[in-house]
Amino acid sequence: MTKEVRKELEKLGNKVLGDIEKTENPNIDIPLRTLSNVIFDKKSGQLTLGNKSAKRYFFNVAHAKKFMQTMMVAGFCNSLLEEKIHTSIRDMYYNLKRTLPQSDENTFDDQAESDPLIVDLEVTIDVLREQLHLTTDRKGIVAGNVVIEDRGDSIDWSKLGSGGWSIPSTVDEIELKKVNAEFVLVVEKNAGFERLHEDKFWQKQKCILVGTGGQPSRGTRLLIQRLNSEHDLPVYVFTDADAYGFYIYSVIKSGSISLAHVSDRISTPEAKFIGLTPSDIFDYNLKKCTIKLKEVDIKRAKELLEYEWFKKNPKWQKEINLMLEKGVKAEIEALSHRGLKFMSEEYLPDKLKNRDFLD
Amino acid sequence: MTKEVRKELEKLGNKVLGDIEKTENPNIDIPLRTLSNVIFDKKSGQLTLGNKSAKRYFFNVAHAKKFMQTMMVAGFCNSLLEEKIHTSIRDMYYNLKRTLPQSDENTFDDQAESDPLIVDLEVTIDVLREQLHLTTDRKGIVAGNVVIEDRGDSIDWSKLGSGGWSIPSTVDEIELKKVNAEFVLVVEKNAGFERLHEDKFWQKQKCILVGTGGQPSRGTRLLIQRLNSEHDLPVYVFTDADAYGFYIYSVIKSGSISLAHVSDRISTPEAKFIGLTPSDIFDYNLKKCTIKLKEVDIKRAKELLEYEWFKKNPKWQKEINLMLEKGVKAEIEALSHRGLKFMSEEYLPDKLKNRDFLD
Repeated sequence: MTKEVRKELEKLGNKVLGDIEKTENPNIDIPLRTLSNVIFDKKSGQLTLGNKSAKRYFFNVAHAKKFMQTMMVAGFCNSLLEEKIHTSIRDMYYNLKRTLPQSDENTFDDQAESDPLIVDLEVTIDVLREQLHLTTDRKGIVAGNVVIEDRGDSIDWSKLGSGGWSIPSTVDEIELKKVNAEFVLVVEKNAGFERLHEDKFWQKQKCILVGTGGQPSRGTRLLIQRLNSEHDLPVYVFTDADAYGFYIYSVIKSGSISLAHVSDRISTPEAKFIGLTPSDIFDYNLKKCTIKLKEVDIKRAKELLEYEWFKKNPKWQKEINLMLEKGVKAEIEALSHRGLKFMSEEYLPDKLKNRDFLD
Repeated sequence: MTKEVRKELEKLGNKVLGDIEKTENPNIDIPLRTLSNVIFDKKSGQLTLGNKSAKRYFFNVAHAKKFMQTMMVAGFCNSLLEEKIHTSIRDMYYNLKRTLPQSDENTFDDQAESDPLIVDLEVTIDVLREQLHLTTDRKGIVAGNVVIEDRGDSIDWSKLGSGGWSIPSTVDEIELKKVNAEFVLVVEKNAGFERLHEDKFWQKQKCILVGTGGQPSRGTRLLIQRLNSEHDLPVYVFTDADAYGFYIYSVIKSGSISLAHVSDRISTPEAKFIGLTPSDIFDYNLKKCTIKLKEVDIKRAKELLEYEWFKKNPKWQKEINLMLEKGVKAEIEALSHRGLKFMSEEYLPDKLKNRDFLD
């Protein structure tokens, strides 16, 4: 993979070099990431970029500094690949920050200048930031009957005690060597992951258990996608019964606006929602354990009603409207009201047996 | 261990039962956790509780509900130990929440009512919450030449690829079977952990690398303490050069006010500070990469100057005053200004070689 990415970086450099040799104004063509260029592709079921783009020129007072910065970021990523090292976007900023000779001008004054250029580069040469060896914060844990190879180590996800495997920022370099599971269960809450892990849920139900700890990191989303696409495993998402939880499901399934350019590589359109639904609150007698909706919850829920992928399914409309009508939300932990093992021994097995999912 | 903890719970129950049998007002004696009862024990170098305590009575209008709640929490923990399961404090709240028969009164109305009772119980029967099988959020990662046993699995911290081992909430049940290292390096930033891990720093320097991801979790602090006390390993703490970083060091070393009752079990008085110091900013030419102090930074730094353990060391006074005087702070990542491998190949090896630590 590194080879292909370096080829793309080289192509970009050669393009600019060609402009210079032809004494043309050096420029690069960058796809637009504004809302006006984000579309929902009904066929793939993902948010994606349209085909608008804008040119960034070297000889242009408004573009010159950004052009220079873009080239610096591309050069930096090229040396990361060359030296086979990974680093964070914050380290990159500090590494590239300097004062230009015979001037007071800094290459970068703030990390807010370098961060968007990484996304520009991602979208221009069509690679993932992780493939440029830029890391994000590690988040997410996984357990299951899977053996992977990572940096020469063979790691068995079923033999990591109470700890599970901490999902790194970059998962496209790991090799999924043995996958023995029938589906993937993605849990929003770490506490839920821990309980299910302790009850050996993944063993009993032959699944891979992923804990996201809130909104999943890019690495976690990429891993879910790989398990789905490379091993044909159904993916079920388990979140709180609230707008934030439904949005997490939506991001895993269809991608997000800010990362629309990489949806095809980190989202999983086949993912289904297993719970908690607002109906569950009443079907499973959890009324004692609900939380009143705040204004922001109501606002977010109304926005979700308008999302195309929630709109097309009347069941989703019914559930979101039920939440608004009753004015309450509930957390995964509310299931503990029915007993600590209720989630692993009744709620989830029932849902799986009856294939009671939302799409 | 579980046996001892259950014995303590039983003792508490028998004490109350005894009161009832003697037709006395049932009561429990709970050590005070207010600031007035927190003292710095110079001999051990830790924050600890004084010997003030207060009685909680059953027949007392102001105490009755809390008394009942305390008993419910103790009973809940007892069944967790009996059933050999762990759960989160949030799940406990939902599990115990119900309406008392023939009344409108709930056992608990809010998690804010049940959380402090867990600490009351911790301090009353002198055990850790983790030993009562109540979990906290998982945080922190570790890598090194160590083999542990956890829930029957043998886990080698040197063979977990890029991922490292995710430190669980409860580490007092793991067994440290083989520890082959000369010291422990605790890194505040996950990005720093990742870079050092990729450069195989723990292999080259024969150390155990711990990433805390900000203020360390109780599990991470307990693990650091165990490595220090059970295996005589020196502990070096590596944070940003700012008041927040120094406070992290202070918590690892001496404990915190809110958890003063467990300092002896989760803090490490022998820990030393390896960097970044405000002097490093000037000694290592990182001036370009500093951040201006905000008002809150100045306020926190002035508070630290008054902490007894920072007060007694003139070097700490000098460093904190230097930061205040120059009006700037710096992050670990600033070292990347000198090259991405500068931290692992020059800065840290130099500090270790010259034993350049703050105490």
